[in-house]
Amino acid sequence: MHLVLYWNFLSFDFAQSSLAKSTTMSSDLKSKFLQVYDTLKSELINDPAFEFDDDSRQWVEKMLDYNVPGGKLNRGLSVVDSYQLLKGGDLTDDEVFSASALGWCIEWLQAYFLVLDDIMDESHTRRGQPCWFRLPKVGMIAANDGIILRNHIPRILKKHFRGKPYYVDLLDLFNEVEFQTASGQMIDLITTLVGEKDLSKYSLSTHRRIVQYKTAYYSFYLPVACALLMFGEDLDKHEEVKSVLVEMGTYFQVQDDYLDCFGAPEVIGKIGTDIEDFKCSWLVVKALELSSEEQKKILHENYGKKDPFSVAKVKELYHTLNLQGVFEDYEKASYEKLITSIEGHPSKAVQAVLKSFLGKIYKRQK
Amino acid sequence: MHLVLYWNFLSFDFAQSSLAKSTTMSSDLKSKFLQVYDTLKSELINDPAFEFDDDSRQWVEKMLDYNVPGGKLNRGLSVVDSYQLLKGGDLTDDEVFSASALGWCIEWLQAYFLVLDDIMDESHTRRGQPCWFRLPKVGMIAANDGIILRNHIPRILKKHFRGKPYYVDLLDLFNEVEFQTASGQMIDLITTLVGEKDLSKYSLSTHRRIVQYKTAYYSFYLPVACALLMFGEDLDKHEEVKSVLVEMGTYFQVQDDYLDCFGAPEVIGKIGTDIEDFKCSWLVVKALELSSEEQKKILHENYGKKDPFSVAKVKELYHTLNLQGVFEDYEKASYEKLITSIEGHPSKAVQAVLKSFLGKIYKRQK
Repeated sequence: MHLVLYWNFLSFDFAQSSLAKSTTMSSDLKSKFLQVYDTLKSELINDPAFEFDDDSRQWVEKMLDYNVPGGKLNRGLSVVDSYQLLKGGDLTDDEVFSASALGWCIEWLQAYFLVLDDIMDESHTRRGQPCWFRLPKVGMIAANDGIILRNHIPRILKKHFRGKPYYVDLLDLFNEVEFQTASGQMIDLITTLVGEKDLSKYSLSTHRRIVQYKTAYYSFYLPVACALLMFGEDLDKHEEVKSVLVEMGTYFQVQDDYLDCFGAPEVIGKIGTDIEDFKCSWLVVKALELSSEEQKKILHENYGKKDPFSVAKVKELYHTLNLQGVFEDYEKASYEKLITSIEGHPSKAVQAVLKSFLGKIYKRQK
Repeated sequence: MHLVLYWNFLSFDFAQSSLAKSTTMSSDLKSKFLQVYDTLKSELINDPAFEFDDDSRQWVEKMLDYNVPGGKLNRGLSVVDSYQLLKGGDLTDDEVFSASALGWCIEWLQAYFLVLDDIMDESHTRRGQPCWFRLPKVGMIAANDGIILRNHIPRILKKHFRGKPYYVDLLDLFNEVEFQTASGQMIDLITTLVGEKDLSKYSLSTHRRIVQYKTAYYSFYLPVACALLMFGEDLDKHEEVKSVLVEMGTYFQVQDDYLDCFGAPEVIGKIGTDIEDFKCSWLVVKALELSSEEQKKILHENYGKKDPFSVAKVKELYHTLNLQGVFEDYEKASYEKLITSIEGHPSKAVQAVLKSFLGKIYKRQK
């Protein structure tokens, strides 16, 4: 159950895509975003709903610093980015603060998923440091810390958005997206359990469902939905935006699956192990779809095994089936479909938000 | 980190207390309460926010049946009970359903805490069956199942309360109480970590803080607060009710700590192990307070050790310090203080709710 740490696009070369130009965030906005973290943290460790003492205050502060701000912050920053594109002008200090606070709520959500995920996966490192639960003093307290992280989100929302007309919609949104993410995790876990006995249970529709629920809603839809709510929009009127972003999130995860096998390790910064780990990857699902009975046998015999010979057999089959070409066709078709959907949207501002997202991920190499 | 399964009061002999007479729930209401579980479960496994298939639907159904309804349901039932006392007359079918649904939300919350707690404690059994994560097919998927349980609460609230004027207050209430419970768990965990090195860190104020946050809010305040909201009350105007219930919850946990050592195992249904487990129990905290330097040495040398000789040494000291008498004095003082607070409340209906709770726990033997 890996919540893949994939979102590398801040370090992505924007020049590759003309779409991306409008989306470069000023370093001023980024530094303001980072300042908001300090404010939120300080409020949380002095929350009057709980009687903190020095020990508990220090514990929470360390736990937050260790787990929340160490990622690339793309989900969080994209709330500010999206809101700015919707508004189409400079933001007031209040707007920067509010959009940043919502962005940080998504980062808190991510931290909560990762802390618990690492426990479940028995992982060792995360973001270049030992997983939180691996620290000798922490251990199983980490599970409760994950819960604390999750509980901080409604504390932040209550403190800063309780009086806003969209407060209840924000609560509903975070609740629904968290439910969808947890449900996506669940089918990923159940499917792997079943798949290990019978690889043929892996299908394109299962893959799409896992990716959509486990990743796309919270990584792609949630930041834009936050910006839309802040902008005064009714989310029920933006089903089309949701479906474009979910589609984009799915495309993003397919890229991720592709790069795990075909990306350059020195570029993606890791050596992929999806084949060894029996992952329900887009590649194995496509391979099953395209294989003859004989080729399927190769997959059944070699997929999910640690030994390099088996891994090589699977990769050889991927080459034989020309999965690189299949992926390129998928990428092109997906891009065109997305652009058509986006350009059909009546609002130029919303189009700009969606194109900004797409520009950040199209043809990424890492 | 034990969320003690203590709430035995349904099987408590009501005749012991005249206060309790008004609170006996009709078996009709209880059977209606149980029916609501089936309705809620069926809605959850068909929730349109997620694309269920047969495998995932079956998984969630089994997980719910295994973890949610198997307790004594006192927290949940007391929402219905309290609402009835507030109304002072028969409930409509709609009212029974709504109060029951809120009651079940508390049972779901409890299930979520217990599933995660058992993983953290590496427990073996719960409610007379193996812990959920101990089932061979489940394992670490249980952690995500805990998250799913937690996520069901806002799904239930949204489906049945979205249009009510108190909807946003319900969301805030559940969020705040969960935050307080998780924070209480945190100080319990941190304190045990520190206490194992230095017993003198255990103090009455730490004990009170742990108990208040970890247990009292969600077990005592939350059911009544749900009933008050449903009855149209503003919780901000009921700080006094909160403080009485939190006080009662604290008293309840002190009883629990007392019974762990001095209760009859054949009555309480378990053999207490707080001494062996280095628990920050009211007894050890009182003992530290009342001990001479020499007696403190006995505690420091023997508390938290598994061997029966050490345990006996601690128990002997408890007897020497007359902790039974100290407890009886505490019980009496606590009861009188609570009764005085309750009778100072302007509303007879609210008094009835609070006295009903107190009647259920005063001088319980199990």
